[in-house]
Formats: sequence, structure tokens, C-alpha cells
Amino acid sequence: MPDQLFSYQQLFDFTQSVFHKIGCSDAHAHTATRALLSADLRGIDSHGVARLGGYVRLWEAKRVNATPDLKVIHETPSTAVVDGDSGLGLVVAPFAMQIAIEKAKHVGTGWVSVQNSNHFGIAAHHAMMALQYDMMGIAMTNASPLVAPTFSIDKMLGTNPICVVAPAGSEPPFVADLATTTAANGKLEILQRKNLQTPDGWVQDKDGNPTNDPHALKTGGALLPLGGDREHGSHKGYALGAVVDIFSALLSGANYAPWVPPFPAYVSMPVQQPGKGIGHFLGAMRIDAFRPAADFKKDMDHWIQGFRACKTIPGEEKVLVPGDPEREFEVERLKQGIPLLETVVNDLNEIAKRFSVTFG
Amino acid sequence: MPDQLFSYQQLFDFTQSVFHKIGCSDAHAHTATRALLSADLRGIDSHGVARLGGYVRLWEAKRVNATPDLKVIHETPSTAVVDGDSGLGLVVAPFAMQIAIEKAKHVGTGWVSVQNSNHFGIAAHHAMMALQYDMMGIAMTNASPLVAPTFSIDKMLGTNPICVVAPAGSEPPFVADLATTTAANGKLEILQRKNLQTPDGWVQDKDGNPTNDPHALKTGGALLPLGGDREHGSHKGYALGAVVDIFSALLSGANYAPWVPPFPAYVSMPVQQPGKGIGHFLGAMRIDAFRPAADFKKDMDHWIQGFRACKTIPGEEKVLVPGDPEREFEVERLKQGIPLLETVVNDLNEIAKRFSVTFG
Repeated sequence: MPDQLFSYQQLFDFTQSVFHKIGCSDAHAHTATRALLSADLRGIDSHGVARLGGYVRLWEAKRVNATPDLKVIHETPSTAVVDGDSGLGLVVAPFAMQIAIEKAKHVGTGWVSVQNSNHFGIAAHHAMMALQYDMMGIAMTNASPLVAPTFSIDKMLGTNPICVVAPAGSEPPFVADLATTTAANGKLEILQRKNLQTPDGWVQDKDGNPTNDPHALKTGGALLPLGGDREHGSHKGYALGAVVDIFSALLSGANYAPWVPPFPAYVSMPVQQPGKGIGHFLGAMRIDAFRPAADFKKDMDHWIQGFRACKTIPGEEKVLVPGDPEREFEVERLKQGIPLLETVVNDLNEIAKRFSVTFG
Repeated sequence: MPDQLFSYQQLFDFTQSVFHKIGCSDAHAHTATRALLSADLRGIDSHGVARLGGYVRLWEAKRVNATPDLKVIHETPSTAVVDGDSGLGLVVAPFAMQIAIEKAKHVGTGWVSVQNSNHFGIAAHHAMMALQYDMMGIAMTNASPLVAPTFSIDKMLGTNPICVVAPAGSEPPFVADLATTTAANGKLEILQRKNLQTPDGWVQDKDGNPTNDPHALKTGGALLPLGGDREHGSHKGYALGAVVDIFSALLSGANYAPWVPPFPAYVSMPVQQPGKGIGHFLGAMRIDAFRPAADFKKDMDHWIQGFRACKTIPGEEKVLVPGDPEREFEVERLKQGIPLLETVVNDLNEIAKRFSVTFG
């Protein structure tokens, strides 16, 4: 069965209604919906409305608080720690990012570490909030453990993404948003559905052997850090994932390493919990805290145009600048609609029935 | 011929004398020597005293100014831009890092972007300056173009390292210092000397084809971003290298992308120079700008001990924490001495003769 197409507005109205129904305020339902659907618009289908059911189940399991009291629990002129009060990360992260932006307005940069939150969707959505203020934006989060460090059988880190965005002038902004693994979990799910093998360097089996089985994680296997194995630099991917964990959780007092709560509500919580909820890290840097924004943007345009003009390897269409593919998705999907898999449509129909809201 | 061993003090006295001879002040000669030799101590042989000749030749070519007037040319409470006045990066980077630390003392964090500098040795040396203040440290630098972005034949980025360090309590600090390529250039040189092939994913030839030739860069080839190829995440390594370039050069007004000046003095300067010299980025974050340092360090100890206790893949000795290998080198080399290749010893003897200083 081919994917069904839905307009952004259709999905927006539906998703917002569901967040209302679980008790979110108008403002929070709106913020959460924008954050969640930014993934669908940008082509990161694994992190968008397909996860709405997952968030609802976390709320049912009382692991998500729909009416959180978001608070700054410590701060200096350039830093803050936010307690997310078990709220949706989709709401907590924009709250924290706005604080980073306000601090950057005053002292040049702002850095906010977050405890007691939940999954926040795609990092780029939050980091990109900085662009309208002529600031660079940074967003990271830790996540439940799926990744084995180099030489390890044990899963110790999440796919721990890093996002950095920078404004340009006539060119679109630079948006780098990457999991610190060779491949994100969503890529594995695509191969599972198509019954295809994974390339080398994506996963290992329960004994730590290289495998090409996309189902390896279901039988004790692990995702591999960016690089794949030691010879190809997996110790670097592991180090980057570790840095995200330290920024997001060790600085805030959230859970870290293998003790980060799982996303699926049916997976029981870790027995040991050294911190609170999951952790994020948000940052904003005012460009003109360094040099005039116009000069920076002119150089960014020149930088971007230089990369686009690269001679390509025969057979490859063009050299991309980070953010290009997602922006192309957004243009297309706003026009043509957002395609959803049958399983996702069925899940959303279930949610619609349960909450008596209209879908599609 | 086996490597010859030299004590740290021998190499220190010699190197400091050479920096004196080219005109550095006492303070600058001392600072530069400490920075340069930190690489030899930590086992990063490619970035240590083996490069002393390279720095001297840059000075002879009038590309390094031995008596720079280091200046803050713009600042806010949490940021600064430093003009390195064509000084040794080995001197400019510690100057900038100290400014970042002072700003962090006052407003929680400090972020310094640097223009008009030269190569700064290993990033870890500068980032680790933060540890004694119970701060996290960050250091990055751009470098001359050796790396082809995903799908590109052209070399557009340097190996652009990222270093992040964090203090722990009873455990040694976390020190992640990584080039954003699959393998650093120094690793290629080792394979060249041993007449061995490179693993897949390290280099491509002049037409962008995968190759295992460690000499590929001499015939128009390029280093590959961390990940190696698109299927293994090279677009992520490319994005990370790009982020380093933006922080180091676009924020400061240094040269960027393929226009970064080369390290070897005999390689002519790029015709187009959109900025000044090469760029660095240094950051410091006071731990207690987020939470009490004692709590953070207790959690870091727990984090580190968790990783060390991981079950290892059969055949592997142990799971390492970023910084472990370099620290082991440092302990051993302070005790046993620093081994230098015959070619390096010969080069240092030449320098000793030229400047009439004692070596070995």
C-alpha cells in the first residue's frame, strides 16, 4: 500500500488537539505540535507524528507531565539549569532555548542545561530558534542507551545528536544536525521493513561481532558510534556521544549513560537513577558578540557558495551543504503534503478514536 | 635504527632556546615550548617537537611573527575576538584560552574566537587549562585544506579538531580530542614509512575513488571526513569539520575553507585570502555556573567507572575513557623519556647547528 499524503495543516490540527486532550495548555500544545511536526516537514519521519502515540503512552504511564511547572533552578549571566518537571521535551527544550537566547542578548552567549525532561523531537527545531535573532544555535540531547562504546558489548550511550546552526545572508542557513552514531535507529527500521541487510559498521551483535542484521538490537546487539570500528574512528563517535551526555546530563543533574529512561513506555525504567529524567543542552551565540553580523553573513554566503561549487565525484549530482536535504523536503512537503506509512496512519486513527478527535 | 630517547627536560630546554633564538620573549618561549611538547608527552608525535623545524621555517618565511602584539579586538561579557598578530598559535591559543577562563569566572562561560594565528599544536593542551579552575574546556582550530567533503573531489577543509575536557573527582579528567577525519594525517605518515596500505575509508584518489594508497594526498587525493563515505556517515564528519571552521574562522574573521594558509612554509599561500591567518575557538564553562562542582565531579567519577566496567568484546583488553591512552603515554614518557625518529633527530640537530644551541 502506498503512503498516504496529509497536509501539514491537517496533521497540525490533529496533533494539537491530541496534546490538548492529554491536558496541555494552549501554548504548550501549540509549541509541542510545532516541534514534533518540524521533523515530518524536514523528512526526519522517525521523529515526527509517527511518535505521537509514543508520547501519549508515556503520558498514560505517568512518565510525561502534561502541565509541567518549568523552572530555572540555577543561573549566572550566561548559564542556566532548567528543571523540566517531567514535561514533554517538545515543550521543555523551546523554553530552555528561549532562555539561552535572552542571555545571549545580554552577555553575548547563553547556555542552558536541562534536567527532568523527555525526548525533544529533532534537535534542529530548537537550535534554529536562534536564527531569527542573528545568533548561532546549538542543541543536544541524551537518549536511552542503544550504542556500545568502542570495544564494549554493553550499550552505554544514546544516539545523542548534536545540532549547530548558523545564519547566512542570501544563502539559506547552515544546519548540521547529526546523531553521533554511524546510522540513526530510524535508518535501521527502514531496512527492517524492506528486509535488507545493514552496511558494515552500523551494528554489532550481542557478543560484539560485526553484523549486517538490521534486527540485531532486538537480540542484544547495539548501534555503533560514528566511525563503526576502531580502525575507522569509532572512538571519535564514542567521544562525541559522551560529550553530548556530559553537556546534557552531567551539567544539569539528569540521568546519564545507561541510566537514561527509555522512550517506549512499555520498557521498564532503569533500577538505578542517578539523576532526573533525560537531559538536553541548548546554546545561543550572538554573532555580533564576535563581529558585525553583516560581515559574518557575507562570509557564510561565500563559504556556502564555495562548497556548492566543488567538483563532484563522477556519478554524484552535487556537493551538499549541511541542511540542504532537509530544506528541500520542507519545500516539497509544504506543497505536496506529508506522506505517512500505513502503520503510522493506523496508529493515529487509534489515537483519534481514543480521544474523540478528527483525523484526516 | 631504533628511536632515540630524550628526557622531557632535554627537549624542553632545547625547544625553549630555539624559540628564544627566533626572537620570542621569555614568557612566550616558555608558553610555546610547553604547548608544543605536550604533544610529545601525550603520544601525539606528529604535533610535537617533530614540527619545531616547520615553525622555524614559517618564521624564516616571515609568516610567523615571534613578537606578536596579542590583542582583544572585540568583546562582550562572555565573548572576545583575539587578533593573534601572526604569532605562533602555540602562544596565541593559551592567551585566548586564559581570556575565556577569566570571562567564565565573571559570567559563567567564556568564548574566544581567534583570527590571524598559526597552527597551535594539540587542542587538548589549551582546553585542559580550564581544568584547574573546575571548568570544562573547549578548543578547536581550522587548518589547511586536506579533506574532501562528501561527494567532492576538491579539498575544502582541514582535519579541524575538536577537543572537550571535563574535570572529574577521584578519576582523571575526561579529555576528548579528535580530528574530524577518519584518520589524522600523522597516521598516514606512519603507514607510508612502514610501506603499508591504508584501511578503507581513510583517503580517496585525485578522481574521488576510494583508495588504500597512503601516498594519495601527494597525487591530488584527499583525506576523508569521519565516517569515510556517505553510507558510513561521512556527511556527519564533514558537518563537524564545517562547524569547527565556522566557530574558528567565520566568527573571528580568519581565513576559512580552502583558503586557510598551509603549514609547510614551502607551499605558497592561497591567492585569495578572505580573512587573516588561521582561526581557533576556545571556550571555558564554569561547572558551578550549572551545579555544584562537587556534585558534577561525583557524577563524572560514576560515569567514568561505569564505562571502565563495561563488558569487553572478546579479544579486547578494556573499554577506554577518552583521554586514557594519552595519559598513559604521559606517565610513561615522563619516566622513560620521549622517543624520536632518526629523521626528527637529524632535523633537530640541523636546527641546533643553525642557532648554535645545544641539543641532546
